[in-house]
Amino acid sequence: MKTIDLETFGIFRGCAGPFFDALSDAAHVQMHPKGKLLVLHEDSADRFFIIKGGWVKLFRETLDGTQSIVDVLPKGQMFGETAIFENDQYPYSAEIIEAAEIVSFPLSVLKNEIESNHTLALNMLSAMALYRRQQDREIEHRTIQNASQRIGCFLLRLARQDESGAVNIHLPYDKTLVAARLGMQPETFSRALVKLKDKTGIRIKGATIEMDNLDQLTRYSCAACSSEFPCKDLQGAV
Amino acid sequence: MKTIDLETFGIFRGCAGPFFDALSDAAHVQMHPKGKLLVLHEDSADRFFIIKGGWVKLFRETLDGTQSIVDVLPKGQMFGETAIFENDQYPYSAEIIEAAEIVSFPLSVLKNEIESNHTLALNMLSAMALYRRQQDREIEHRTIQNASQRIGCFLLRLARQDESGAVNIHLPYDKTLVAARLGMQPETFSRALVKLKDKTGIRIKGATIEMDNLDQLTRYSCAACSSEFPCKDLQGAV
Repeated sequence: MKTIDLETFGIFRGCAGPFFDALSDAAHVQMHPKGKLLVLHEDSADRFFIIKGGWVKLFRETLDGTQSIVDVLPKGQMFGETAIFENDQYPYSAEIIEAAEIVSFPLSVLKNEIESNHTLALNMLSAMALYRRQQDREIEHRTIQNASQRIGCFLLRLARQDESGAVNIHLPYDKTLVAARLGMQPETFSRALVKLKDKTGIRIKGATIEMDNLDQLTRYSCAACSSEFPCKDLQGAV
Repeated sequence: MKTIDLETFGIFRGCAGPFFDALSDAAHVQMHPKGKLLVLHEDSADRFFIIKGGWVKLFRETLDGTQSIVDVLPKGQMFGETAIFENDQYPYSAEIIEAAEIVSFPLSVLKNEIESNHTLALNMLSAMALYRRQQDREIEHRTIQNASQRIGCFLLRLARQDESGAVNIHLPYDKTLVAARLGMQPETFSRALVKLKDKTGIRIKGATIEMDNLDQLTRYSCAACSSEFPCKDLQGAV
């Protein structure tokens, strides 16, 4: 069953037919409603996932139910695959936050393949290095950026960096979730967004943020970041 | 020149003699004074490093000189090796913070080897996954733990987890640096340490923290963490 173009995924680049056949033959495609918990943190992991449509929230929570959001993923993203390096346990819980079409594949096929497929191993190393860089940036920003600058950086990552002139950025999901994704309380987020508006002249119209160009936002947020400018992380990835 | 037992490093487990010979033949051992900048963030990377003695701080800084500490490493740790996945640029600056004996090796040898050595690639994947988990925890803690709980977690990671009864924990470097490592201002750190003392009954004597047992500290800090208890990350690694 050909469900998805696996070869378009970075970690599968250069991999061969039989491996794709083994994955595709065991693929399940399923629609899931909003709110559905797909996997639970530290549960035994047997499948990994590709989002064909919809949105998925990856998170962990403490015993008393406080959530920490690891990521919010749009269609085209993969998750759960790193469980093969985590004693076959999921490193997070995954919840559908907008009705989603999810394709799942057996982790065992991936795990067997990586034992002998050097191309796959090198691809996964590159993917892990990219993730590592993104996490490093996240930790850095939580230390040295203020809340408004962090929202600015989030918006910049949603914009096409080659755009000149007026730019409209649409928040990809609701503001409460954006706040949680950025590790902020909703009220902190609201206050910081108003401050960002004052500092950079952006205009907030519901879920759309308008600005005359990206310069002001860039000047304000990227001043408190160690990345070389223009930022290699700014490629439309949230 | 046999400078260090390379085979004892996780990423080199199961690697073969000729690779070790190539590394050892090109190894440099050097003593560096406190304050020496070993490598600069985003500089072209040609060597990776193992700390034989002393301490090294990994950090980045913004244009205006604000520092964000990535890690503070004791002897026995390796750094700089992931530059091979970062377009051969160092992902951080490295500064000697206590007179250090450093062994350096050419990155080109590592880069050539990983092209064909599958064991090395899998070892590096495991190491990256471990680092990823630690970074995830760090991001989570900066979101849901208060400053006192984060200091508690830092202390727990310095303690031997199998100790029962009275425990003495020695801060491995000065408090200003511990504060920076935890992404706190020195005054925040001081206030939070006093609060931690009130909450858990620890006794602070200069750079030594004494307690009757680890239970109180564990109860206070690990309550605001999503990791399964006992924590897999608590293995003496800071």
